[in-house]
Amino acid sequence: MSERKLILVTNDDGYLSEGIAALTAVMRRLGSVIVVAPEASRSGAACSLTSASTVRLREVSEEEGLRVVACTGTPVDCVKLALERVCPRMPDLVVSGINHGDNASISAFYSGTLGACLEACIQGARAVAFSLQDFSRHCDFSPFLAAVERVASLVLRQGLPKDVCLNVNFPVVPQLKGIRVARMARGQWQAEWEEAHHPRGERHYWLSGSFTDLEPEAEDTDYWALRHGYASVTPIQLDNTAYSAFEALSSL
Amino acid sequence: MSERKLILVTNDDGYLSEGIAALTAVMRRLGSVIVVAPEASRSGAACSLTSASTVRLREVSEEEGLRVVACTGTPVDCVKLALERVCPRMPDLVVSGINHGDNASISAFYSGTLGACLEACIQGARAVAFSLQDFSRHCDFSPFLAAVERVASLVLRQGLPKDVCLNVNFPVVPQLKGIRVARMARGQWQAEWEEAHHPRGERHYWLSGSFTDLEPEAEDTDYWALRHGYASVTPIQLDNTAYSAFEALSSL
Repeated sequence: MSERKLILVTNDDGYLSEGIAALTAVMRRLGSVIVVAPEASRSGAACSLTSASTVRLREVSEEEGLRVVACTGTPVDCVKLALERVCPRMPDLVVSGINHGDNASISAFYSGTLGACLEACIQGARAVAFSLQDFSRHCDFSPFLAAVERVASLVLRQGLPKDVCLNVNFPVVPQLKGIRVARMARGQWQAEWEEAHHPRGERHYWLSGSFTDLEPEAEDTDYWALRHGYASVTPIQLDNTAYSAFEALSSL
Repeated sequence: MSERKLILVTNDDGYLSEGIAALTAVMRRLGSVIVVAPEASRSGAACSLTSASTVRLREVSEEEGLRVVACTGTPVDCVKLALERVCPRMPDLVVSGINHGDNASISAFYSGTLGACLEACIQGARAVAFSLQDFSRHCDFSPFLAAVERVASLVLRQGLPKDVCLNVNFPVVPQLKGIRVARMARGQWQAEWEEAHHPRGERHYWLSGSFTDLEPEAEDTDYWALRHGYASVTPIQLDNTAYSAFEALSSL
């Protein structure tokens, strides 16, 4: 008799976001779910963690097959606490999202959604981050739930290569054309800062800006997939060593 | 006549830390220095950025060849603001640190020191992060300043491969045995959470834990270098795509 799968769900938009509700609903079809997610939005948290203050866990609810715990920490804190203090055993799968806003190309560096997923991967779990290219608070996630289930089922069934996790992004389309395995596009955020008027004349800025895909013609990137109506699935590795640069550094 | 080099200095321990003072002193020998660094400690900030509030810049001091600006944001915010709003042109070099505490192996994921460096690299700058394996507030950085200058000079002279930055770590030794180009060790933080007593019984935790090198025998890793008295120089690439995993995902 096979044991019921255990799935940990987290995100960076907070445990009350619509994206995590959509993701949780899909995961419940695949196993028992534990949600450990931030109390409030932690957008742009990347892999940051909390070391200068305590982090609090708060039981929100529990029903058959679903336990929800809110956490004052970052997405990485959530995963660290979930694995060490909440989950009865290593989950069969850790999923993060569905993020309100995409995390393709270099946005992956700033993403708390992917940060949670990297942390799970570091700890040896199979992990997938899901994001939708729509930053609004109310998004229609329904066109993507079949793809979410497909990717999660595949990972549950066949696992992932060692020290690799998945970064999945969805474009805003009524119907996906399909799923493409794609590399991170080279990209850049530009004109990022907007001056904020401060009553006493201090220099304050809002982070803003627009993203530019630096290789729009390349057909093997995540942004190409998104622009053409496909979900992108980018496998991300933990070892970021640039082996090709060793020779250039040999004179050190 | 060659123009004087322009060097941007930042860190994650705050603009008043001893590590950034040591780094700034070395950089002043190599060019004109602009410091844009956090107002206070941002340890563990990774690549996080500030989007839910404004970020403030504050001029601290200016003298011949050295301008210091404090920033309420994260290390990534510091670099983004420095490059867009403070520096008169793209710096010839961006350096971060010297961090109080090492950022080798997977600690690189959580590091604001390296986060700043990755951001500079994303924006096309040559960038190097420096960290010392000593978490105390007062460290003796003097045994490492020659190596800092050597690495920075090399990068100024010959550049770095495209989309690659450097993560440099120093062990606590009276004298370095040398500098080794090394890959990130596979590692794990364990037993990370310590319960904090809360007067009303809430569940609070402190992040703590200890690091384990999962491949202590491998001689080509950053941790091996540190354990044996060498500085480690790890080239880090922006493209984290796990190309080797594409085939395993072909059934998607």
